[in-house]
Amino acid sequence: MPLQFADRLNNVETSAIRELFKLLGKPGIISFAGGFPDSAMFDVDGIREAVNQALTEEAGGALQYGATEGYNPLREQLAQFMGSKGAQQVAADNLIVTTGSQQALDLLGKTLISPGDKVIVEGPTFLATIQCFRLYGAELISAPIDGQGVKTDELEKLIAEHKPKFVYLIPTFGNPSGAMLSLERRRQVLEMAVRHQTLIVEDDPYGDLYFGAAPPPSLLNLSAQVPGSRELLVHCGSLSKVLSPGLRVGWMIAPPELLAKATMCKQFSDAHTSTFAQATAAQYLKAGRMPGTLAKVRSVYAERALAMGNALRRELGDAIEFTQPQGGLFIWARLTGAGGKVADGNALAKSAIDKGVAFVPGAPFFCANPDHATFRLSFATADVARIEEGVARLGQAL
Amino acid sequence: MPLQFADRLNNVETSAIRELFKLLGKPGIISFAGGFPDSAMFDVDGIREAVNQALTEEAGGALQYGATEGYNPLREQLAQFMGSKGAQQVAADNLIVTTGSQQALDLLGKTLISPGDKVIVEGPTFLATIQCFRLYGAELISAPIDGQGVKTDELEKLIAEHKPKFVYLIPTFGNPSGAMLSLERRRQVLEMAVRHQTLIVEDDPYGDLYFGAAPPPSLLNLSAQVPGSRELLVHCGSLSKVLSPGLRVGWMIAPPELLAKATMCKQFSDAHTSTFAQATAAQYLKAGRMPGTLAKVRSVYAERALAMGNALRRELGDAIEFTQPQGGLFIWARLTGAGGKVADGNALAKSAIDKGVAFVPGAPFFCANPDHATFRLSFATADVARIEEGVARLGQAL
Repeated sequence: MPLQFADRLNNVETSAIRELFKLLGKPGIISFAGGFPDSAMFDVDGIREAVNQALTEEAGGALQYGATEGYNPLREQLAQFMGSKGAQQVAADNLIVTTGSQQALDLLGKTLISPGDKVIVEGPTFLATIQCFRLYGAELISAPIDGQGVKTDELEKLIAEHKPKFVYLIPTFGNPSGAMLSLERRRQVLEMAVRHQTLIVEDDPYGDLYFGAAPPPSLLNLSAQVPGSRELLVHCGSLSKVLSPGLRVGWMIAPPELLAKATMCKQFSDAHTSTFAQATAAQYLKAGRMPGTLAKVRSVYAERALAMGNALRRELGDAIEFTQPQGGLFIWARLTGAGGKVADGNALAKSAIDKGVAFVPGAPFFCANPDHATFRLSFATADVARIEEGVARLGQAL
Repeated sequence: MPLQFADRLNNVETSAIRELFKLLGKPGIISFAGGFPDSAMFDVDGIREAVNQALTEEAGGALQYGATEGYNPLREQLAQFMGSKGAQQVAADNLIVTTGSQQALDLLGKTLISPGDKVIVEGPTFLATIQCFRLYGAELISAPIDGQGVKTDELEKLIAEHKPKFVYLIPTFGNPSGAMLSLERRRQVLEMAVRHQTLIVEDDPYGDLYFGAAPPPSLLNLSAQVPGSRELLVHCGSLSKVLSPGLRVGWMIAPPELLAKATMCKQFSDAHTSTFAQATAAQYLKAGRMPGTLAKVRSVYAERALAMGNALRRELGDAIEFTQPQGGLFIWARLTGAGGKVADGNALAKSAIDKGVAFVPGAPFFCANPDHATFRLSFATADVARIEEGVARLGQAL
């Protein structure tokens, strides 16, 4: 029988970069392609202690069904964690725990998007966001960015023109851009949210991974200074980039009515996030290990980001342009075509594989009008020596 | 701003029985209302050993991002587990791991249901199935059951009339019916699937919880004997009822094309199921503890089911009728109205709360034409003494 699938599947295709990932198995490849943290950073001892503590103190809670909203001891810990990062008035019941922040995106789609609804995202933005929202029938509008994040003047024009269901931003060290939205632009985003009564989704999985000074306050933190903005704001957080993606623990802070509807949708999506993982995360946070873990990952990734930036300038010179990232996992670069060199990210990705180095071309990260000269490099998973070798190979490929 | 939610939310309401659950906090209540296993059955030591083994042997895999299809060592173990239960030709790549079997239902909805599509379910069926499919716009058709499960003659008429996208069944000790579909009817279901080229979804979270002789082969196992039926069959399994719901580990076996589409949808739902939980489950299965765990839960629940059945006959007599379950967690009963007694499950549920015992009325489990005289009792979480006391209170309430 030829199965007839749901119409919504016509809106998406399997990720264009999936094909590329198949090539990564080639022996000796140095990969800058991944979008994940370095496994060597995981605090295995801390997590082991946490899970054993959870099984000793609260085996019933850790192994039984739990509330769809999340395991209360974790919600309390996450509220405190947000408070420690300057978020005011986040109580346990202002957030729900999600199965990674990917599920927060899915719940936003399920809760808010009817087929044909418009959603504004950054161009470029997180690939799985594009596909996730399209599965719910969203028509995506691309808001251009520069080295300071989304261009707010253009964003406001798009909001006025399209009256979107919501605007989705990764303001701090976004994937793939690595850009950090300036304080002034953050304030502007909140002000235009109020002016146009537009819901803003702040996805913030990378904000803790800063290398020097802390980034400007999150939109959530800043909302305390912009009257009326807090009730127009959704904030998504995650332990994936700082502690462990394998736990699949994310969270969503949102206005009460939206949180209630998202909880109902979550009930029929996966009932609740693994209480085994939630109780482990709660014990980990309670044990006070997070500040040490953050300090470690920040310093390691800072060193790698610097090494990659220096190597790129040395090996590729004026053939590329990029903004040195101040946090996160990624360098977002653009081929200038200088000296008649290749200016197509996809073509370079293919020849780079031949030279033994992998990265991801930038075009698939755009929901419209792709810039084919762009590409994304992750500095997170290779050490400094391999970063230098990999960038040297990239120079040869170019 | 009044938020405007997606149209699909108009198709569902928060569970009718949620209101009832709020009353369960009343001190001294004996609850037969839950749909979950007894926390006292959890093999905490086995799970502790398994997670520590996973963190020792494969910390990277257990804590890092993983494949959307599932963590391979777990897929291998689950394929073996299915084989040990008589399922032929289930290899690791014939299944994907889901975040509980609730997510398998969600992925089936996302992958297959366009708004207006018809889906046949049993009347009564699992409450979250009804809501989950309705969120995707399904029009649900109710197929009547008796003590032997779904009435296959009626089911075939409904298939012929409605040409559904698929038929969803819980053939073995279903929630809420507790019924066990007879071998003859199982064969008929597979034959009509082939005859009408209709996809059948077999949800099987309870099949391992049999009390005496093993139940008839699952539809999956039986499909080997009915040519053409295997490629029309989806089978959903779960560790929630036998090991721990908190792990959120379920799986789905389906034809390759459907499995590929469901995997794509899962990628944008939660990226993958917690590898931390998956690696733990894999180690648990590998350690060979499952047969002992199954023997224990079977014997405890068998004793409780018997105690509840006997108490019901003693205390409620001809005021109710029910089929003594041969497995699972539930007794599904019907008020006969004999002797002029109450014949409304909802009314009885309310007066029962006053007497200090809780259960769930049956009407919400029907997607259409509810039988208001029905109700569901779980015998899983109270010990024999409390079951006898609770049923005595029920007798008083009646």
